[in-house]
Amino acid sequence: MNEPGPLTQNDLPTPALLLDKARMMRNIARLAGHAERLGVSLRPHLKTAKSAEVSRLLTGGTPGPITVSTLAEAEVFYNAGHKDILYAVGIAPQKLERVQALRDRGCDLVVILDSEAQARAVALANVPALIEIDSDGHRGGVRQKDPALIQIGRILQERTCLRGVMTHAGESYNVRGDAAHAKFAERERHAAVSAAEALRNAGLLCSVVSVGSTPTAHAARDLTGVTELRAGVYMFFDLVMAGIDVCTVDDIALSVLTTVIGHQPAKGWMMIDAGWMALSRDRGTAAQDVDQGYGLVCDADGRVLTDLIVSSANQEHGIVSLRPGADGPAPELPIGTRLRILPNHACATAAQHARYHVLQQDNRPMQTWTRFGGW
Amino acid sequence: MNEPGPLTQNDLPTPALLLDKARMMRNIARLAGHAERLGVSLRPHLKTAKSAEVSRLLTGGTPGPITVSTLAEAEVFYNAGHKDILYAVGIAPQKLERVQALRDRGCDLVVILDSEAQARAVALANVPALIEIDSDGHRGGVRQKDPALIQIGRILQERTCLRGVMTHAGESYNVRGDAAHAKFAERERHAAVSAAEALRNAGLLCSVVSVGSTPTAHAARDLTGVTELRAGVYMFFDLVMAGIDVCTVDDIALSVLTTVIGHQPAKGWMMIDAGWMALSRDRGTAAQDVDQGYGLVCDADGRVLTDLIVSSANQEHGIVSLRPGADGPAPELPIGTRLRILPNHACATAAQHARYHVLQQDNRPMQTWTRFGGW
Repeated sequence: MNEPGPLTQNDLPTPALLLDKARMMRNIARLAGHAERLGVSLRPHLKTAKSAEVSRLLTGGTPGPITVSTLAEAEVFYNAGHKDILYAVGIAPQKLERVQALRDRGCDLVVILDSEAQARAVALANVPALIEIDSDGHRGGVRQKDPALIQIGRILQERTCLRGVMTHAGESYNVRGDAAHAKFAERERHAAVSAAEALRNAGLLCSVVSVGSTPTAHAARDLTGVTELRAGVYMFFDLVMAGIDVCTVDDIALSVLTTVIGHQPAKGWMMIDAGWMALSRDRGTAAQDVDQGYGLVCDADGRVLTDLIVSSANQEHGIVSLRPGADGPAPELPIGTRLRILPNHACATAAQHARYHVLQQDNRPMQTWTRFGGW
Repeated sequence: MNEPGPLTQNDLPTPALLLDKARMMRNIARLAGHAERLGVSLRPHLKTAKSAEVSRLLTGGTPGPITVSTLAEAEVFYNAGHKDILYAVGIAPQKLERVQALRDRGCDLVVILDSEAQARAVALANVPALIEIDSDGHRGGVRQKDPALIQIGRILQERTCLRGVMTHAGESYNVRGDAAHAKFAERERHAAVSAAEALRNAGLLCSVVSVGSTPTAHAARDLTGVTELRAGVYMFFDLVMAGIDVCTVDDIALSVLTTVIGHQPAKGWMMIDAGWMALSRDRGTAAQDVDQGYGLVCDADGRVLTDLIVSSANQEHGIVSLRPGADGPAPELPIGTRLRILPNHACATAAQHARYHVLQQDNRPMQTWTRFGGW
């Protein structure tokens, strides 16, 4: 919903979540162009955005195929016009009634699974499914050579519930650079295509071969045999993605607007009114080459203040200081100064807020887009 | 608001936030009794609960004095009947208009500050304030011997805005055991009472002397000179508080109900549908003697499953495994099994949810209490 809101960011109470629409549109166009060149369709993951305004902009205004992480997302986005939805978290049998209710309303909602127990429940409920393939040991899924793959496929096909396979190289987040991500992209492709071939060789249908994560989606060079590509955080990007060179800091479309509320000059600390409640507890850059604390500090117009980070966070307080080893002194920012904080992890930071305050180009008035949460 | 909801936890979709009312009432009674014995009034902090149902139960049904961390909390709790409210985050001058609006409606809303710049803005707006005292180097505040204390006091008193002093020993979270917490309680008392005396010796008024944190509030043995005690997480407790011996694991009133959705037997992993979106990214036990991962696993009735923790979390997936070094094997929990996860940090976990599903005694039907967020 586009609510009436303040005209400029100066009118916003802080902390507040800002979304730079021009940067977001640039990020959306980048991956859409790459998928087109690779000859695969794109199925964006909306677990980060959780906003119907964003979902419409992904595909030029027409609701397209999407991925979701909760049934609440499936319901909201179906009501917003999306009819082709993949629920990409392993299905619990207790949730099938709610899946069926949405399917009965005309939604082509597909689930994922990686066990015979789930396959039996899904087949009984007549819900189409993708089998999750484990391409990198990250989390769930069956290996493409595991005999369980064929067993699961047979159980599903008996009730014509086998739609295909999917995989997600979550481990690609832990390596840096395009070449490293391209290797994970090829592992995703190889695992998913091999699994599809194994199913087809066993006489089973496998029309969908779905792969992706934000790093691998951007780095993939050849997706022969793949039918669709998934990615989520790419529309906003964040410091974690910048830290592994999937984007630059300048591509980050999301930030938290905050106000300076105090100083401890002897310690080189500035207090701001964005603590972990506004920034999230995510410390995704802690294990990266450059630890950004709880976020990188920019001025109110979004220019990075070199080496200034949110070094510590309590519930409603952030402590801003120079990063360890940086040359001082820190800029003097009086009480009342407004700043923007770039987030470690856009999914986690956005989840702490109920709306996006959308910065538009050419000084046009801001828009307010609601976002939702829950399950 | 008490919404109609499911009768038992078996009817709840997962993940869902459970609140055990009997445990909460026991925790509330414990600190209320301690404050009474110490002869100080209690001003509970509602930043954790963010629920009018909880706030009413703190003081036997009558809305009492409270502490808040956002102006949104002040507004909601004023509307729920609380008229005596301390906003315990350093005031930004831009927020004074909203403070005045609430005061104009009859709310005795008091702010805190630690600089002359804030004091001038607050005096100009005619808003009463406490001066924040730094008793342990944790975050903000002026030291009780800093000449700035008297300067700030004079600026406030000129417009009769000086109400008193307050301090919070946030560093008490980093030490373990009653004796260590008692030392921090005495540091809080000493710093606040000394600051109050310094102000009075300078001819300034100082009627309020406010101290507290959950560890120090429980450990304080003598609060001579103190007028009120503050604490927040004590009503729910959590693994961080249990890890420093402020409570036991059995006192924790909050948990996240979840469902088993997968297995990776070769790795000893179980997948659940509570990831960091339901549990929060808080890893507050990581630096404690016992690292509880993203939470300690219990069965659906709340019995702890020894050494089973949420060892890793993605957005909507938790990975459950035995803690490092524990004797196996882990219990076999089929897909669909329901579990409860005890949180590291109740404030952070509760913030991920829009409602409490309240477990009542004697198998009475559950209640649903809404909670709010935002600023």
